[in-house]
Amino acid sequence: MAGEREYVVAVAGATGAVGREMLAVLEQRSFPVKEVRALASERSAGKRLPFRGGGVTVSVLGEDSFAGVDLALFSCGGALSRRLAPAAARAGAVVVDNSSAFRMQPGVPLVVPELNPGALRGHERIIANPNCSTILFLMAAAPLHRAVPVERAIVCSYQAVSGSGEKGMAELRGQQRALAEGREPVASLYPYPIAGNVLPFVERILEGGHTPEEMKLHNETTKILGDERPRVSATCVRVPVERAHSEAIHLDLSGRMSPEEARAILSRAPGVRVVDDPERNRFPTPREAAGGDEVLVGRIREDLAFPGGLALFAAMDQLRKGAALNAVQIAEELIRGALL
Amino acid sequence: MAGEREYVVAVAGATGAVGREMLAVLEQRSFPVKEVRALASERSAGKRLPFRGGGVTVSVLGEDSFAGVDLALFSCGGALSRRLAPAAARAGAVVVDNSSAFRMQPGVPLVVPELNPGALRGHERIIANPNCSTILFLMAAAPLHRAVPVERAIVCSYQAVSGSGEKGMAELRGQQRALAEGREPVASLYPYPIAGNVLPFVERILEGGHTPEEMKLHNETTKILGDERPRVSATCVRVPVERAHSEAIHLDLSGRMSPEEARAILSRAPGVRVVDDPERNRFPTPREAAGGDEVLVGRIREDLAFPGGLALFAAMDQLRKGAALNAVQIAEELIRGALL
Repeated sequence: MAGEREYVVAVAGATGAVGREMLAVLEQRSFPVKEVRALASERSAGKRLPFRGGGVTVSVLGEDSFAGVDLALFSCGGALSRRLAPAAARAGAVVVDNSSAFRMQPGVPLVVPELNPGALRGHERIIANPNCSTILFLMAAAPLHRAVPVERAIVCSYQAVSGSGEKGMAELRGQQRALAEGREPVASLYPYPIAGNVLPFVERILEGGHTPEEMKLHNETTKILGDERPRVSATCVRVPVERAHSEAIHLDLSGRMSPEEARAILSRAPGVRVVDDPERNRFPTPREAAGGDEVLVGRIREDLAFPGGLALFAAMDQLRKGAALNAVQIAEELIRGALL
Repeated sequence: MAGEREYVVAVAGATGAVGREMLAVLEQRSFPVKEVRALASERSAGKRLPFRGGGVTVSVLGEDSFAGVDLALFSCGGALSRRLAPAAARAGAVVVDNSSAFRMQPGVPLVVPELNPGALRGHERIIANPNCSTILFLMAAAPLHRAVPVERAIVCSYQAVSGSGEKGMAELRGQQRALAEGREPVASLYPYPIAGNVLPFVERILEGGHTPEEMKLHNETTKILGDERPRVSATCVRVPVERAHSEAIHLDLSGRMSPEEARAILSRAPGVRVVDDPERNRFPTPREAAGGDEVLVGRIREDLAFPGGLALFAAMDQLRKGAALNAVQIAEELIRGALL
């Protein structure tokens, strides 16, 4: 960003997996930062976090943390967001919140910058970052939907433990070490071991039998696209992968689209990289997506059984495009639109 | 089995992951074995394999291995099956073949004993064991389909490395050790590391973009059910799990079925155990399925977006019900029907 103005940026939840990534992304993208404030719980106060060669000292997150702040990136869980994001907004900051607290609230823009930047116009100082699974799905499906409307989508996820933050990654690493040493893996964060296992379960199971993750894919898609289509059904599954999510996506289109057309559309879609060479067995994997900014899409093919159907597979770094990168891109879009 | 007759049983491919499991299942189910012949490649000749306390010595698999054999359980790959199963049948054995060589051949029964035992009648000495992914899908879906026909199914798999045999399991273990020790995992069997990763790729990608595994789910389902419905579309994905496969299954039914009705039907289905208690976060996992005989089914719920749709999640030990157990159950069914 080569703008003239520089901004005071607060990162609420700076010591978490997403918070650290937010600091890294601000630095890597040369976001016009005048001053950065790393905010976290009392326990982390005084800790140093890396930023631009030097570092930044963590201070305690509270209602009075936001005086003079222009932009507040929140990633500290729904309860704290609900309490402190309005305080930050009252203090004059524009909040980009990574929790689910405000996503479905009318008047709060829910934004993937490549897809619906226009929703930022008229914001009321709180902007919501969509759930990672929704971002992954829409980065792959929305460009196709805009060419030929998708009536229905079935999404089965292969979600990394980074979705549970540092704790999830530590749990997986500890259990993998146990398995490698012939010990029993001990579950503490999840109800069962995740190493050598998959759990068709993200967070909890609601009445009706769906998980919040599955509901988010359904509800957020409608809000972001501003369209009741596609209707999305999902099964969300945690897999023993550290930081990139994947999704198998089956789409029912309202008209025909060949795999070649889909590949051409996705090749032009910003933020997407097509990795799809059946002859060389090239396809997206979470390992290849990890650490990168792009959403990888491949295995693009006609549905075996449903005429007008397309199937594909997508992978994305959950901490970057699924959270920190998308939030910083929203901030960049605010600057571009003179909305910050 | 308390029959009077005992049988000479050959296991072709006895040193492989499925072959060893076949010997274990024959013993555990007290199959009426008069004599067991463990057959494998020259490399393994002379090796001792455990069977009934004592053991059995491996002899070389060849055209002349089957004199006097009543039942030959084959698990040595399609090429050897194509060459040697007809020789075994000519020598008088009934062959239950675990490869894909004969599955779609007209006149060859393709059998899941709980679902279509009648297909064994009139067999011509070669019987095919379905692919593991098909068995898992149908054990969960066929009982529902018989109550209210399923028009369409979308299956996304979470497949264990045991599907690639001992080699797959060794590759995963080696890579997991590497990760635990901070080394780079080295891929040899699969095109990319499988530890800490998922691969939307089983075997290879065919023209048209599907994998053989995805085609098998589609084609074998039709043959086993003797019904063009359900039309099955699949995305088959390898995950870093050792020996049990899982599947997320989304069904479009031709009429309404509530999750409670589905749960009741599956609770009565032989070989199925319903593990589905949303309030206690109880659901099927491959870790719980491993080593067991039952197909675990849970996360039974209405489709979020499609009226008349049902979603569920199933897990099954790939080496047992997905291969060795199903083959031995076919043999038991042959005895029961005086077809051996």
